[in-house]
Amino acid sequence: MKSFISYSENSDFSIHNIPFGVAIFNQEYIACCTRIGDMVLDLATIYDYGFFDEIEGLEENVFEAYTLNEFIELGKPVTNAVRLKIQELLQEDSKLGQDKKTVEQCFYKFDHVQMMMPVHIPNYTDFYSSIEHATNVGKMFRGEENALLPNWKHLPVGYHGRASSIVVSGTDFYRPKGQMKPPGAESPVFGPCKQLDFELEMGFIVNKHSEMGDSISTSEANDAIFGMVLFNDWSARDIQSWEYVPLGPFLGKNFCSSISPWVVTLEALEPFRIESPIQEPEVLNYLKFEGKQNLDIKLQVYLKPESGEENLICQSNYKFMYWNMTQQLAHHTVNGCNVEVGDIYASGTISGKDKDSFGSMLELSWRGTEPIHLADGSERKFIEDNDTIIMRGHAEKDGIRVGFGEVVGKVLPAK
Amino acid sequence: MKSFISYSENSDFSIHNIPFGVAIFNQEYIACCTRIGDMVLDLATIYDYGFFDEIEGLEENVFEAYTLNEFIELGKPVTNAVRLKIQELLQEDSKLGQDKKTVEQCFYKFDHVQMMMPVHIPNYTDFYSSIEHATNVGKMFRGEENALLPNWKHLPVGYHGRASSIVVSGTDFYRPKGQMKPPGAESPVFGPCKQLDFELEMGFIVNKHSEMGDSISTSEANDAIFGMVLFNDWSARDIQSWEYVPLGPFLGKNFCSSISPWVVTLEALEPFRIESPIQEPEVLNYLKFEGKQNLDIKLQVYLKPESGEENLICQSNYKFMYWNMTQQLAHHTVNGCNVEVGDIYASGTISGKDKDSFGSMLELSWRGTEPIHLADGSERKFIEDNDTIIMRGHAEKDGIRVGFGEVVGKVLPAK
Repeated sequence: MKSFISYSENSDFSIHNIPFGVAIFNQEYIACCTRIGDMVLDLATIYDYGFFDEIEGLEENVFEAYTLNEFIELGKPVTNAVRLKIQELLQEDSKLGQDKKTVEQCFYKFDHVQMMMPVHIPNYTDFYSSIEHATNVGKMFRGEENALLPNWKHLPVGYHGRASSIVVSGTDFYRPKGQMKPPGAESPVFGPCKQLDFELEMGFIVNKHSEMGDSISTSEANDAIFGMVLFNDWSARDIQSWEYVPLGPFLGKNFCSSISPWVVTLEALEPFRIESPIQEPEVLNYLKFEGKQNLDIKLQVYLKPESGEENLICQSNYKFMYWNMTQQLAHHTVNGCNVEVGDIYASGTISGKDKDSFGSMLELSWRGTEPIHLADGSERKFIEDNDTIIMRGHAEKDGIRVGFGEVVGKVLPAK
Repeated sequence: MKSFISYSENSDFSIHNIPFGVAIFNQEYIACCTRIGDMVLDLATIYDYGFFDEIEGLEENVFEAYTLNEFIELGKPVTNAVRLKIQELLQEDSKLGQDKKTVEQCFYKFDHVQMMMPVHIPNYTDFYSSIEHATNVGKMFRGEENALLPNWKHLPVGYHGRASSIVVSGTDFYRPKGQMKPPGAESPVFGPCKQLDFELEMGFIVNKHSEMGDSISTSEANDAIFGMVLFNDWSARDIQSWEYVPLGPFLGKNFCSSISPWVVTLEALEPFRIESPIQEPEVLNYLKFEGKQNLDIKLQVYLKPESGEENLICQSNYKFMYWNMTQQLAHHTVNGCNVEVGDIYASGTISGKDKDSFGSMLELSWRGTEPIHLADGSERKFIEDNDTIIMRGHAEKDGIRVGFGEVVGKVLPAK
C-alpha cells in the first residue's frame, strides 16, 4: 500500500496506522483528525465534502468536535469503516489524491497544528501489570522474600487514578510539593518533591458505556477497546512512600499524567499480536482468554536536560505485560463496575528483565543508589527541574511500521 | 422566619435550609429545584417568571439543566444571593406567596417528582478522616499495637474512587461478584461477595475549577465548597481485603456509591459550626486552620429487611471527624492537583467512640463476631440480599433544623 503523501520509512504514521486525534488548525479551528507521515488530515472537512457518505451509522459530522468521544462511541463497525475509508482515500491513485484543491484544504503540516487531548476522560484506572516492575518495587520496599504480594498472580492489581490532571503531550507541569518523611526523620516535612519520577506505561481507551451490574468478558473486551496511547504516570516517590499506606497512591501521582495525542486503534495493531507470558498458577475462569492478546510494541524513554541532548535511558516493550488488556477490563467490570466512553485504563509501569528495560527512575537508579550517567557528564538519581522526559513507541513487522509518536513533558521548578 | 408553605417542625427542609437538587417533574420535564417541607420548587420556572431578575451574575437560566454544575460554578456571590432570594420568596408575606397562580405552577409535592443525581461528578475522592473508624479497622486487621498507621495523624489519608458508579438515593444495585480468599483457603475463589457493607459518610461538592499547579489553602477552602450530601460508600469487605495491598481499595468499592439528592449549602450549615477535636501532634503549616471548621450533624443508619421494619443500627455525628473539610481540600491540592466543578470529596466512614456510633457493619458486628439483632428476630453480620440501608442526617440548634433527608439503597441478589 502506497500513499500519495510521501513519508519516511521510519515514520510511525504510515498508511497502515491511521490514528485519531484532535487538533487546533490555524490557531482557531478545532477538529478531529488523522495523520500520515508529517501531514495531519482534518476529518471534519473530509466529512463535509462527502468522502464518508457511504459509511452507515455516520449520520452526523462527529469530527466537528473538541474530543473523539462522540466518534468512538459509534463503536467498531463505524470506526473501523472510517479508518478503512481513510486508508483508501490516502492511497496513491485515490479520488482524494487527485483532487488537488481538497488536498490543499484538508492537509496541514504537523508542525503547523497544535494537538489537544484526544478524548474527554470520565474515569482513569492504573493497573500494575508488569511482573518485573512489581517485583523490582517489591524488592526495594519489602525485600526479596516478599517482593510479589500473594494476590499479584491471581488478579490484575489496579487502583483509581485522577482524571482531572491527565494532560496531552507537550504540557509542562510544576514539580509537586508535599509532605514527606525523610529516612530517619522524627516527623514529616513539607517541601518540593525530591524524588520525581516517570513511569513508562501505555493506556487503552474504551468506546462504550456499560450499565452498572454488567460485566465485559475477556472475549468481549477487544470490541470495547477503541485504541491505545503512550502514558507517562509521573510519580513523586517520596510523597508516595509516606502517604500510600493503607489506601494506595494519592498525591504522589495526581499532580500530572501525560498521554500521547494520537490514539492508535487496536485494528492497526492487529499484525503485532503475540502470545502472552504463561500465567502460573492458573487464573480463575473469568480471567481466562483465547488467542494472542499481547502486543509487540517497542518502547523507549529519553531524558533531555534543559540545554542538553536526548539520552536514551530505557528500552522496554509492551510484550512484557503479564496481564493483558482483556483481563484488565474483565477484572475491572466483573463486580458490575460500569465503564464510560473515553475511560482510560493504563498498564502500570512496563519493565522487562534487563536493567536497561526498567520503566522508571526508581528502578533504573535502584532507588537512587546507582545514578544514571548522561551524555553531558551529569548524573541523575531522579528527575531534576527543567528535565524533559520523552517516551516513544512503535511496532514493526514485515516492513510495516505502526507507531504512537511521542509523549513529552517538562518538569518546571516548584511554584 | 415563617413560610407560606407549612411543614412539620421535624422537617429537614425548613425555611432555614434551602438545599439544591435536580428533579424530573411530571415524568418529562427536568430542572434544578429546591425543597421546603414536602414541596419541591421548580427554579427554572421561577427564573423565567423574573423572580431572580435582580441577582447580578445570573444572566442565564442555569436552572434549566440536568445538573447543578452550571449553577454552582457561578460561585458563592451568586449562589448565596439565589439562596437568600428563595428564602425571601418563601416567607409568609412574600410576593410569591400571594401569587396563587405561580405557586400552583412552580410547586410540586415531593412524592410526585423523581429526584436525579444533583451534579455531574468529574472526580471523586474518599478520605479516611474519622480517627475512631481508622482505629477500629486498624485493630481488626493489624492488631491494637499497629491500629493507627504512622502517617494518619500527619495528613488526611485519602484515595481516588470511581466516579462512574455514584448513584442517587433510591437506585438499587446488584450484590457484587468478585475474587476473594476465604481464611485458610489455599487459593482465591470467585463468587458473590459475602461481606457486603455500608459506610456512613458525608461528601462535599466543589464549585470551582482550579489550574494544575495551584493550591487551595485552608482559608480559601470554604469559598470553594458549595455544599454537602450524605454518602454511602458501599463496600465488599471480602473482595477488598484480598485485593487492596499494595495499591488500595478497588473492586471492593467501585460497584456502587450512593448520595442523597439534596445538596445542603455550607451557608445553611453555618449555625452548626463547632470546634474540631484537638490535633496532636501539631500539623504542618499548610494543614493549620482558623475558626470553627467542624459541624454538629446528627447521623443515623437504618437497616430494613425485605418485608420488615426499619432498624436503627447506628447513631453517629459528623463532629467526630478528626480532619475537617478545609484540611482535606488543602491537602488534596497542595501538590498542584486541580479540582473541577462538581467534584465530590467524601469524609470516610464516620464513627464515634461508642459502639452504637460505629459507621459500618464491619465495626458494628466487629468483623462478623458480634452479629446485630433486628426487630424481626433475625441477625446480621453483614448486609443480606434485599436489605435496604437508609442513612439520615440533620443539624438542630435553638429551634432551627437543617437536614439532608436520606440516602437509600437496596441490595439486589447478585446477577
